[in-house]
Amino acid sequence: MRSNEFQLRVNWGDTDKAGIVYYPNYFKWFDIAGHQFFRSCELSPLDLEEKHGIILPLLDVHCTFENPLLYDDIITIKTSVEEINNKTIKLSHQIFKGDTRTGVGHELRGWVKQQDNDIKAVPIPEDVISILNEDIQNISSKNPWLSA
Amino acid sequence: MRSNEFQLRVNWGDTDKAGIVYYPNYFKWFDIAGHQFFRSCELSPLDLEEKHGIILPLLDVHCTFENPLLYDDIITIKTSVEEINNKTIKLSHQIFKGDTRTGVGHELRGWVKQQDNDIKAVPIPEDVISILNEDIQNISSKNPWLSA
Amino acid sequence: MRSNEFQLRVNWGDTDKAGIVYYPNYFKWFDIAGHQFFRSCELSPLDLEEKHGIILPLLDVHCTFENPLLYDDIITIKTSVEEINNKTIKLSHQIFKGDTRTGVGHELRGWVKQQDNDIKAVPIPEDVISILNEDIQNISSKNPWLSA
Amino acid sequence: MRSNEFQLRVNWGDTDKAGIVYYPNYFKWFDIAGHQFFRSCELSPLDLEEKHGIILPLLDVHCTFENPLLYDDIITIKTSVEEINNKTIKLSHQIFKGDTRTGVGHELRGWVKQQDNDIKAVPIPEDVISILNEDIQNISSKNPWLSA
Repeated sequence: MRSNEFQLRVNWGDTDKAGIVYYPNYFKWFDIAGHQFFRSCELSPLDLEEKHGIILPLLDVHCTFENPLLYDDIITIKTSVEEINNKTIKLSHQIFKGDTRTGVGHELRGWVKQQDNDIKAVPIPEDVISILNEDIQNISSKNPWLSA
Repeated sequence: MRSNEFQLRVNWGDTDKAGIVYYPNYFKWFDIAGHQFFRSCELSPLDLEEKHGIILPLLDVHCTFENPLLYDDIITIKTSVEEINNKTIKLSHQIFKGDTRTGVGHELRGWVKQQDNDIKAVPIPEDVISILNEDIQNISSKNPWLSA
Repeated sequence: MRSNEFQLRVNWGDTDKAGIVYYPNYFKWFDIAGHQFFRSCELSPLDLEEKHGIILPLLDVHCTFENPLLYDDIITIKTSVEEINNKTIKLSHQIFKGDTRTGVGHELRGWVKQQDNDIKAVPIPEDVISILNEDIQNISSKNPWLSA
Repeated sequence: MRSNEFQLRVNWGDTDKAGIVYYPNYFKWFDIAGHQFFRSCELSPLDLEEKHGIILPLLDVHCTFENPLLYDDIITIKTSVEEINNKTIKLSHQIFKGDTRTGVGHELRGWVKQQDNDIKAVPIPEDVISILNEDIQNISSKNPWLSA
């Protein structure tokens, strides 16, 4: 299955008074990583929406927190396809600080068509499934945020 | 000029590793207070948009930070009209913890009409100016939801 | 088991370009609701930390999204104790818009003692377990601050 | 005077229901850019705090919004020293989307010493002033977030 990996820094505003990352920020990163994953497959969410009327709403998310993250830590987010169903895609996200995993979770996203002011889950096209099934590990070494 | 006042609690996620409020949250509160101010004048932003195609985009904002705010502090936000121009409204916001002011600033918002996929600043209607000019201080009683 | 219920408004900044709530905000609300739950039991997190050196870090969280939430929606968050273990507490959170549930999830929090620059999970005291086990439904009346 | 420049992407969660950036995020970026500026001068805020007990609290901030920013836009943030006083540093921040400036503002930060549970503004050391006065334009071409 396809996977993608990129890095970012824990910013000052990501922490709380305990000096560690405020946990909803893990999901902010999952969301960023999900979008980045689709960009890395040439399935940019912006194009999907503007050219095909396809959006990828969240249905279910989960995270287990294993180790604390601190201000200025550089983290690596590893995203991979965990499961493809008829109308949904499950992404697995893992966050690492060096070799230590600090959190692991998933996002379950629907494949949804916007049409005539209505939205409806539709089957994921075969060519998209092929892309998601490819055994490609996309590991950015440069700034992945700018390489879309 | 019209003014409005309401209270809210500093939440855990509003703080940073210094144990005080992360400053962009002041603007999150200014934005909430601005919307609450317009609601208190029966100029609900949702109605303005849906019924009249009017939105109130930000043109300029400022804040001076005078004292720190901590987790669980109850704050009072006092909002008042500072200036009304042909196509803009300037709101003043002050944040208090008890009698101590912790920050003061402003939001300058445009009066903007959405039409045919375009947006354009338009003159503020006379009846709106009259409402904003009224000498009404809308002071909600202490928020009982914050005394748990 | 103990439960608590309170209301808040979906603010402008809680939405994203799809016009619905950006999903990490559900966890911001879960966190607020968790803190509010403990306050409602007279186990204020601030007191727990300052007087007893007890903090309640997150171990695991989950949310299923069932219906969209829009700007200006008034939501009710119902929090209840789902499970008490030796050193952990599992809270269930449900978010409603009127009678429609829009999301349901949980937070698993540890009962952790800070001591000599170290932190360690410790057994939850009997009197705390008694409080959490009480069959009290703390339902705040409608939040008058949301009806402006 | 010293300046620094880096890029980032407008994420999905940075937008609001108007489809443009929710304005408090400009200050989130200013804060990130301020920290990045100090890192680029080898005055890492983390080192300043841990090795010298120096923190850089915000005293005053301002922003004028000139053009809208959309999801997936790549922005360049240009930060430069605008003014150095005895105990304060004023940073200017400009945000560009291509050649179009979308916002400009400042952060005024104090030079504050933490000592014996107290904090006190103190004069900025001469060697720090020299660094800030250097005529160096630090323009990152690689991922500046990872080059500290």
